[in-house]
Amino acid sequence: MKNKQVLLASRPRGRVEESHFRFVESAVPTANEGEFIVRAHYLSLDPYMRGRMDDAKSYAKKAEVDEVMVGTAVGEVIESHHEKFKVGDFVETRTGWQQFGKSDGGGVRRIDPQYVPISAYLGVVGMPGVTAWIGLNEHGRPKADETVVVSAASGAVGSAVGQLAKLQGCRAVGIAGGKEKCEYVVNELGFDACVDYKAGRLDADLAAACPKGIDVYFDNVGGPILDAVLLQTNAFSRIVLCGQIAGYNNPDALTLRNARSFLVNRIQLRGFICSDHMDLWRPALKELGTLVHEGKLKYRESIVDGLENAPKAFIGMLNGKNFGKQLVKLI
Amino acid sequence: MKNKQVLLASRPRGRVEESHFRFVESAVPTANEGEFIVRAHYLSLDPYMRGRMDDAKSYAKKAEVDEVMVGTAVGEVIESHHEKFKVGDFVETRTGWQQFGKSDGGGVRRIDPQYVPISAYLGVVGMPGVTAWIGLNEHGRPKADETVVVSAASGAVGSAVGQLAKLQGCRAVGIAGGKEKCEYVVNELGFDACVDYKAGRLDADLAAACPKGIDVYFDNVGGPILDAVLLQTNAFSRIVLCGQIAGYNNPDALTLRNARSFLVNRIQLRGFICSDHMDLWRPALKELGTLVHEGKLKYRESIVDGLENAPKAFIGMLNGKNFGKQLVKLI
Repeated sequence: MKNKQVLLASRPRGRVEESHFRFVESAVPTANEGEFIVRAHYLSLDPYMRGRMDDAKSYAKKAEVDEVMVGTAVGEVIESHHEKFKVGDFVETRTGWQQFGKSDGGGVRRIDPQYVPISAYLGVVGMPGVTAWIGLNEHGRPKADETVVVSAASGAVGSAVGQLAKLQGCRAVGIAGGKEKCEYVVNELGFDACVDYKAGRLDADLAAACPKGIDVYFDNVGGPILDAVLLQTNAFSRIVLCGQIAGYNNPDALTLRNARSFLVNRIQLRGFICSDHMDLWRPALKELGTLVHEGKLKYRESIVDGLENAPKAFIGMLNGKNFGKQLVKLI
Repeated sequence: MKNKQVLLASRPRGRVEESHFRFVESAVPTANEGEFIVRAHYLSLDPYMRGRMDDAKSYAKKAEVDEVMVGTAVGEVIESHHEKFKVGDFVETRTGWQQFGKSDGGGVRRIDPQYVPISAYLGVVGMPGVTAWIGLNEHGRPKADETVVVSAASGAVGSAVGQLAKLQGCRAVGIAGGKEKCEYVVNELGFDACVDYKAGRLDADLAAACPKGIDVYFDNVGGPILDAVLLQTNAFSRIVLCGQIAGYNNPDALTLRNARSFLVNRIQLRGFICSDHMDLWRPALKELGTLVHEGKLKYRESIVDGLENAPKAFIGMLNGKNFGKQLVKLI
């Protein structure tokens, strides 16, 4: 048996192409004392990975050329010389874009496949869900009846943000690309409204969807959509900035023209990533798991089959082609 | 005796001209029951007044065409039918651009001309000083040894920000226009460094002045200077946004190109105006008054003589021609 792996072949300048990745096969790793081997069932594809491909200073260690592309997977322990993880345990672990990974237990989370489906631990009961929970509760701090807007609303983070806001008695308004996603956000996830930014009337549609203005904006994209939101913000509104997907291929696309609103509306803007708040992961995951288990928090997955399709699926996700949490099924 | 007044004649589109103001003379007002009359000694000229001249939505009530231009003065009560304010009291009051004003006591602060010079109650022991104090302590929250940068560093707000930061053990770096202002900021006010933005090497000079990066930026100007600061910010830095003077004549000048830093550096940006925090005025004024009284907080004033010179002095201030707090002496 071999271990299929995806390496970073070269760093993109601008748009990511499949040629920036390279496939290799190596031997399945074996565990030394204090280590264990995980067979991955699902690999998570997330927007943050685009940033890791760059050489620029960012908030996390970058991916290295000719090494396994960074990423998180859920899977089963198949060999262990580690006292805390046994064969048959299910875990979430940062083993990257490969079928088999070795771990010493650092940063590994044990998961319960009986409580919610294992793939959910990569999404709504994992990093994207925690990102939504922390950004909304710690930084957005919405009060009941306030209007909470979230971009990339049908995605893994955005769909959780809006549902959590609804559970707190807020008006939840999504922004998404295309009619199908917007209908899903309103009809399936229960948002009060969803604005299709591809329809070409962003300012007017956003104003109509937010008749009382915007109190909290959870931003996953930056650039022109953030600019449109800035025009509708209420006094003392909060902007939680957790993604800048608009700028991944072109930093100029993040230019802001309506910065005047920051002062006029006494805005609090906060950039954050979920690993800044490790103390909040436990309460966040507990609440998210309970809500999913009880059917009160919905999610959708976009699953491609086989590691060989990971680069294409990743590129599609950066261009908004996914619908819900993007995963690669490996087994 | 007549009451000279300056009215807003018309709203500027872009640059303010003297023709946007109009001089009239009216009778000196008389006080009814519950009112008193103040003879102004000094009128304060402040950047916020530019915003009040516009018709656009902003954080405060706008000035009205054909009415006395809004503003704050310090002066002496010369007639009173008010139980709390007696003839001979000195007060700070929002009577606008005129020699004599009527008040019912709302928003009036009694001041002590023996403690610090009365003009200081319009500057470092008044709204500009409180703005510096609140912005730095409430939103900037610097720790000892952190680097605090402030723009318009020789101005009424900026000069206080840097000195207060020094008193807290921080490295204080100013940004100002021209060699003379920068020398004053370092040699007289005791900042560690001051960058001359007119010298044409803003990015390099700012990097040299902040070898450990920037932890707190107190922004009075917005636009390209804020953009330059964004490139030097440290992780978890705080940006306190209290003025956007770069945009007063042209909102496009506030465009931000380096918004990527908000997320990369997990920045907290906060727009604020000092009237958002009325509960903090008392402790702020107490500390500022004590520091000035004890000679630990320095300030400089730019004083023009006579109300007839107020429009010209105001326009000069918007263009950075003042050096320290801009005042008009009326008596």
